[in-house]
Amino acid sequence: MGKPGVKESRSAPGRRTVIASLHDELRTRFGDRYSTAAAVRDHHGKDDSHHPVIPPDGVVFAESTGEVAFVVRVCARHGVPVIPFGAGTSIEGHVQAVRGGISIDMSGMNRVVAVRPDDLDATVEAGVTRLQLDRELRGTGLFFPVDPGADATLGGMAATGASGTTTVRYGTMRDNVISLTAVLASGEVVRTGGRARKSSAGYDLTNLLVGSEGTLGVITELTVRLHPVPEAMAAAVCSFPGLDEAVRTVVEAIHMGVPLARAELLDATAMHAVNFYSGFDYPEAPTVFFEFHGSEADVEAQGTMMQEISRELGGTAFQYARQQNERARLWKARHDAYPALLGLRPGCHGLTTDVCVPVSRLARCIAESEEDLKTASMPWGVVGHVGDGNFHAVFIIDPDSEAELAEAEAINERIVRRAVAMEGTCTGEHGIGLGKIGFLESEFGASGVAAMRAVKAALDPRGIMNPGKVVA
Amino acid sequence: MGKPGVKESRSAPGRRTVIASLHDELRTRFGDRYSTAAAVRDHHGKDDSHHPVIPPDGVVFAESTGEVAFVVRVCARHGVPVIPFGAGTSIEGHVQAVRGGISIDMSGMNRVVAVRPDDLDATVEAGVTRLQLDRELRGTGLFFPVDPGADATLGGMAATGASGTTTVRYGTMRDNVISLTAVLASGEVVRTGGRARKSSAGYDLTNLLVGSEGTLGVITELTVRLHPVPEAMAAAVCSFPGLDEAVRTVVEAIHMGVPLARAELLDATAMHAVNFYSGFDYPEAPTVFFEFHGSEADVEAQGTMMQEISRELGGTAFQYARQQNERARLWKARHDAYPALLGLRPGCHGLTTDVCVPVSRLARCIAESEEDLKTASMPWGVVGHVGDGNFHAVFIIDPDSEAELAEAEAINERIVRRAVAMEGTCTGEHGIGLGKIGFLESEFGASGVAAMRAVKAALDPRGIMNPGKVVA
Repeated sequence: MGKPGVKESRSAPGRRTVIASLHDELRTRFGDRYSTAAAVRDHHGKDDSHHPVIPPDGVVFAESTGEVAFVVRVCARHGVPVIPFGAGTSIEGHVQAVRGGISIDMSGMNRVVAVRPDDLDATVEAGVTRLQLDRELRGTGLFFPVDPGADATLGGMAATGASGTTTVRYGTMRDNVISLTAVLASGEVVRTGGRARKSSAGYDLTNLLVGSEGTLGVITELTVRLHPVPEAMAAAVCSFPGLDEAVRTVVEAIHMGVPLARAELLDATAMHAVNFYSGFDYPEAPTVFFEFHGSEADVEAQGTMMQEISRELGGTAFQYARQQNERARLWKARHDAYPALLGLRPGCHGLTTDVCVPVSRLARCIAESEEDLKTASMPWGVVGHVGDGNFHAVFIIDPDSEAELAEAEAINERIVRRAVAMEGTCTGEHGIGLGKIGFLESEFGASGVAAMRAVKAALDPRGIMNPGKVVA
Repeated sequence: MGKPGVKESRSAPGRRTVIASLHDELRTRFGDRYSTAAAVRDHHGKDDSHHPVIPPDGVVFAESTGEVAFVVRVCARHGVPVIPFGAGTSIEGHVQAVRGGISIDMSGMNRVVAVRPDDLDATVEAGVTRLQLDRELRGTGLFFPVDPGADATLGGMAATGASGTTTVRYGTMRDNVISLTAVLASGEVVRTGGRARKSSAGYDLTNLLVGSEGTLGVITELTVRLHPVPEAMAAAVCSFPGLDEAVRTVVEAIHMGVPLARAELLDATAMHAVNFYSGFDYPEAPTVFFEFHGSEADVEAQGTMMQEISRELGGTAFQYARQQNERARLWKARHDAYPALLGLRPGCHGLTTDVCVPVSRLARCIAESEEDLKTASMPWGVVGHVGDGNFHAVFIIDPDSEAELAEAEAINERIVRRAVAMEGTCTGEHGIGLGKIGFLESEFGASGVAAMRAVKAALDPRGIMNPGKVVA
């Protein structure tokens, strides 16, 4: 786990000549938009994870699908890797250039190509970020729901198969990408579909590329679903005697058809951290943050129902908020959770687990995992997207301590094995990257991984697309 | 279009010996559950489409994943095709044995393995039918929403990427299959995931198999999402001066966030047919059938809102029904549409188009298609899943007339070309089978079809999995 892949090709005979010729070709084509400066390369050789910097040989700042195709064709001809780079907010080591090669920075491909209110869809270039799209949609009465926290690019979110706090109601990237334009390993451009809401035509290339982390193609454009901004929104917070009660409350609500828009769990440590960080005085107990979307009457009814269900399961200190500023205040604790946890140990950084299990097993999975977590020598806290069965244990580790990294990774491994044994997954929303490659076979068996490898070999026979990730 | 694929391998030298040896092996293993009787082979060489019977060499009635794996291994060793068969209700020529081979009848794999109310999921064998699952779920407070009309098997519905009347609210098979067990061309069994509600682990084998029509593997078991039965349901019917107003009413409702559970369009001909067939006296004008799900207050509010929107767009004769028997009466016309259309010309059968376009283009697509349809020498009618942008023109053709078939296919081709030009798809829910192969490239381009072929070659290098379908 977490050890960068092979690098032998970097020192292979003739490699220097190949790279020099590649530099010439890319500099000629892109001028200033091709960089080999160390700082630029380092920036593109690292994401938001604990995985160390592994810089690419150069970085192209692309501005069109045609330019991406050009880079891929040149790299294919030289047999050199291509690594797409969005906002660099992934957290499993997705962008590290473990076999060198060219990073394609997509941030210049940030045009919103079209917003179509009548079709509830938008087409954007891959470098458009989530918050940028939010801004562009203001006044349309529509919004894009997938919220992974970071201001990631839409292309990166699709490539990672990201999701977030609203998934319980609006789904993941997979549910919200209608079709894609991508550059394949051959340099050919493929459009994976039109804009119809559904299709049963041919193999699902869209979903093959979503979650493929740049290993099957570079996503350059996406058509995504938009949703009507609800007439009304409300928020609520409730404390519970234990994790079990907190989780059961959410499961019960879903089962009763309450269309929760968000249901976020923070454990006692995370609540302690946010109290300390933001000066709140929430009970330091397992807490669920709710959000309700609908008509005025709907959100009122959902809030009442949620309060009743919570009370029956031992929930206390139920707070409900309708106005925008009250809602924002209530949710601030949730939004601050990650920096607040990091604040428990200044100068350190986070290592985050990401398992997802069937919801009926979530409480047990968290409870058993806490037994592992309690053995840790560093601080940790738990946050979870309860409605999806997904939770994150965040370890606050000393970046210079190999021992702490090893310790956190060992606990992560136990958490993953437990989740997979419960018919869950090693990663609900962060992807495989470098960090989770070792778990793939435990989840899909040898035959499943072999099928993935066969697909990879078919679409990228020379292995130049973000090599060393997903399937090593 | 519609011409069965190549059959040369049927008379290749040595083939008779191969088939004889295969017969022996399968008879030894399966006894009575292996049949080479002409009637059985004919039944398995035809679906509900106009495509002619092309019988397999034999039919295995499988009862377990292990048995399916055995058949695939034997066939792989002999280089003989394998064709999964569910209920035979597909309508694009999905099961015809264009290169001979063994049909695997899945109807004996009809166990509901588990229903898990806490997780809102169920695991079923591939031969479980939609109505069987409905029955098994009675009393659980849960239901499985995908309703393609026919009592198809869940495995067949997944393999086809089916959907139907409730898709506007609950999604397609793609949205409702959590994971699959399948037998690949090697005879290996793969499980494409656990039961977590979401995962970003590895390539999406689930969605690769959904819609692959048996060409990448035989689906033997599925874990599907269940949904809480709504507290209340209501129905409504409304007539419109034209298709444009009917479609715009639905689009407007979706845009305003009305969570329609069903919104089904019938054109004037279809309404004439159901009046004639079932003795109704509905206005013979474009008509939309609605269904609302939610709390008592929700469905009331949705009905009121729908009536207002309809009225603004010229809708008349709005009828609303809350009680189960009234709802059933109201919806009977919609349910009778297909037999009613066939009833316009006794002894004939249907050929059904299936394009799907962005909803903003649906009215124009239908209107322009009607100009083509009006040239037809046989009766036809239009029904549509308006909220999805999907409509079907049903031609009532004489089964013995090659000229009528050719005429209907020519019009279908014009409808498909128009839909694809509108960023739509040649098939919203019926799949490619034999009937739509010729359109795949117009929709995905040469690079898209090449990528699909590469995936097919990677997972089925000998081309034994339902050959001649999807990618020829």
